[in-house]
Amino acid sequence: MIIDVKELYEKLEEKMNTEVSLQGWVRNHRKQKEFGFIDFNDGTFFKNVQIVYDNKLENFEEISKIHIGSAIEVTGMIVASPAQGQDFELQMKSYKLLGDCPEDYPIQPKRHTREFLREQAHLRPRTNLFGAVFRVRSVAAMAIHEYFQKNNYVYVHTPLLTTTDCEGENQMFKITTLDLNNLPKEDGKVDITKDLFRRQTYITGTGQLHGEAYAMSYKKIYTFGPTFRTENSNTKTHANEFWMIEPEIAFCDLDDLMNIEEDMLKSVVKYVLEKCQTEINFLDQFVEKGLKEKLTKLVNSKFTRITHHDVVDILLKSPNKWEFTPSYEDDIAKEHEKYITEYFNGPVFIYDWPKDIKAWYMKENTDGKTVAAVDLEVPGSGELMGGSQREENLDKIISRAKQMNVDQETVEWYINLRKFGGCYHSGFGMGFERLIMYLTGIENIRDVIPFPRTPGNCDF
Amino acid sequence: MIIDVKELYEKLEEKMNTEVSLQGWVRNHRKQKEFGFIDFNDGTFFKNVQIVYDNKLENFEEISKIHIGSAIEVTGMIVASPAQGQDFELQMKSYKLLGDCPEDYPIQPKRHTREFLREQAHLRPRTNLFGAVFRVRSVAAMAIHEYFQKNNYVYVHTPLLTTTDCEGENQMFKITTLDLNNLPKEDGKVDITKDLFRRQTYITGTGQLHGEAYAMSYKKIYTFGPTFRTENSNTKTHANEFWMIEPEIAFCDLDDLMNIEEDMLKSVVKYVLEKCQTEINFLDQFVEKGLKEKLTKLVNSKFTRITHHDVVDILLKSPNKWEFTPSYEDDIAKEHEKYITEYFNGPVFIYDWPKDIKAWYMKENTDGKTVAAVDLEVPGSGELMGGSQREENLDKIISRAKQMNVDQETVEWYINLRKFGGCYHSGFGMGFERLIMYLTGIENIRDVIPFPRTPGNCDF
Repeated sequence: MIIDVKELYEKLEEKMNTEVSLQGWVRNHRKQKEFGFIDFNDGTFFKNVQIVYDNKLENFEEISKIHIGSAIEVTGMIVASPAQGQDFELQMKSYKLLGDCPEDYPIQPKRHTREFLREQAHLRPRTNLFGAVFRVRSVAAMAIHEYFQKNNYVYVHTPLLTTTDCEGENQMFKITTLDLNNLPKEDGKVDITKDLFRRQTYITGTGQLHGEAYAMSYKKIYTFGPTFRTENSNTKTHANEFWMIEPEIAFCDLDDLMNIEEDMLKSVVKYVLEKCQTEINFLDQFVEKGLKEKLTKLVNSKFTRITHHDVVDILLKSPNKWEFTPSYEDDIAKEHEKYITEYFNGPVFIYDWPKDIKAWYMKENTDGKTVAAVDLEVPGSGELMGGSQREENLDKIISRAKQMNVDQETVEWYINLRKFGGCYHSGFGMGFERLIMYLTGIENIRDVIPFPRTPGNCDF
Repeated sequence: MIIDVKELYEKLEEKMNTEVSLQGWVRNHRKQKEFGFIDFNDGTFFKNVQIVYDNKLENFEEISKIHIGSAIEVTGMIVASPAQGQDFELQMKSYKLLGDCPEDYPIQPKRHTREFLREQAHLRPRTNLFGAVFRVRSVAAMAIHEYFQKNNYVYVHTPLLTTTDCEGENQMFKITTLDLNNLPKEDGKVDITKDLFRRQTYITGTGQLHGEAYAMSYKKIYTFGPTFRTENSNTKTHANEFWMIEPEIAFCDLDDLMNIEEDMLKSVVKYVLEKCQTEINFLDQFVEKGLKEKLTKLVNSKFTRITHHDVVDILLKSPNKWEFTPSYEDDIAKEHEKYITEYFNGPVFIYDWPKDIKAWYMKENTDGKTVAAVDLEVPGSGELMGGSQREENLDKIISRAKQMNVDQETVEWYINLRKFGGCYHSGFGMGFERLIMYLTGIENIRDVIPFPRTPGNCDF
């Protein structure tokens, strides 16, 4: 009976001094004259199993030639281990080679740079580091679904293909089924009516607008899916394809929204701390010292709430020399974000932003200068979520759409949500990779996406 | 204190004869001379709340003018209802209009055709039918995550943007950031190196190949995300954008795979039956008579397992007149699927398919004629899942890729998974919309996708 390594660790007492069979891969192999050790991992659990064998086995010579990276099935006794820091080992009785691996296998048991491992995107989850990161990613995704479903939100699959001008068409990839080398023309221009959808279609950068339609039906909804930006930007925090969570709630003002954001984030962090103890301990030790403490602290903290105006006051009063001068009319820079989260020693909601630097669908405050928008800044990672109350007044949103040059024909259905029983409502977006970077301590977005896409990089 | 309608139904005993406030929408409004009734729904629960008011309220005239579709806040006593089939009603004390709705509101309380409602995709979840369908969709998505996470699968976000030839490039949308009316040229051809990724990039039709890489690390993984096909096909079962679940399991043969498929499907159906009782009852009554019985039966049935060869035997022996003659070398037609599930009176796994009609990465059987592929056919809906054991032999998969004209350069990384500890493994794909159609009885794929995309239709 073949069991998972996870089960072996969970039921260790029961399995001790019994025979088990495992199927998995050789992470490392140290051979000596009379015996040998194999670090074995089947992917179901972060920790390896140490396999020991000796020359009493008649095929000792053959066993000692097992390559690193090979897939094997192994049978043997689980016994207490004499080695320090290890509860048990498996004494090999027999093995079967299920998949060999040549010696030029790129993932050798040594330190590889993250840059090198990015070029081995199909193999890197076999390392400790990426094994931990992508399990955290999976568990965090589940934490998000659990939170919203438990609270009776409806999960909506908003469309990715769209003709709606969501984020400005320059930021969206165009899609086509036409032959680029032989485009149909009409009056010298491309005849897009010959394309599958008969008009110019994009892959979207947000599910928010479609999400709002569903919030006007179900009260509480969330999206969780891939989004795309064409940004030609090579930084540690930008990718052209990433995942977003976009909840949208009817009868919800900015204050309610902050309550939801805070509650959700704490719930997700708590869930990951509980389910990924081994991974978080590893990441704490090798990636970000103090990670576990940082996460535990967040769960138990009360998030600060402060207006953009008051943040700028604090920044201007500070003795710091700023590269970018803080301004009541402008966005705040990375250096400001850092200062503010350190100043309050915890997560900070900054709300009521100058309207000219925010999106057209955000609700204007009575001061005529700001909108009811809120960004959540967390220590060490900067902005984690961005949200707002949405403009529910029909005339006001039409006038804002005009001011901001939104192609109104494509958003007419969205604007009309205000006409048909539209109520006050709010929503936010959380970049999922931002969250994973925060949860793992990983600093480059390329290392939290299984197969990252950045300008010039769409291999695999 | 405002509460959700769901909470009101759940804690009805406690709320009886107390005052509550609700926020939601007017589904219907029947006025009489001295009193009136409002069917009220806040989207958190399938069922309405009946609000009653009478002319003892000083703003009776105003109340009686509340429009269908409006968003209101209402306060009143929860009292036992004299009306049949209704446990309680809310006696209105006061109300607030939160969002008006004009009389040309498209969703009037009468029967609308599904065709008409497709043109109101942003409003149709406010109807009983679509309210039920899209809640089932959300709950079914959660059921899938629950199943795989409970069984220690890692959820992998495989990329949508890809240069890998997954399904044949003719079936994939091309993406570009270039201006179609002003394409950069080199020797008369489009200079694709000027595009963001510097090569021709597509949106993918499958996450399988990338999923296999992760199965070779974690043993058990699944994907769940949107996929795309350029198919120019207007049928009830085709859409250009849809969601897929693609689990992939190392050390798993075709028999194990069928066990997993069967176990998963039963688990998902059971979960939905439990969590969506009200919705399933409604769908049973108004969409597919016998739906609930069909689903309950599936949970308790044992799925038949039979080879493609033996299925053709049965078809040839049957007294039926076939439009398409059954053949040992060919795919089976819709009429055959129907016959076979009726013949066995339940779900049927058909396995060992002729290799020439199946994909290049499937494992060839020792007969040299068939591959270890399996389709699951369910009564009333036909094919629900398709899977196979994957070819793990390096030489064989290279020769199959050549035979099937796969662009090898783009799948080299995938093929090399066989080189580096590749083991026997299997996986399957389930079209999520297919599942939702099965769960709801809805017959047109356009009615189970929030904003469906089909040829010529990419509005909203």
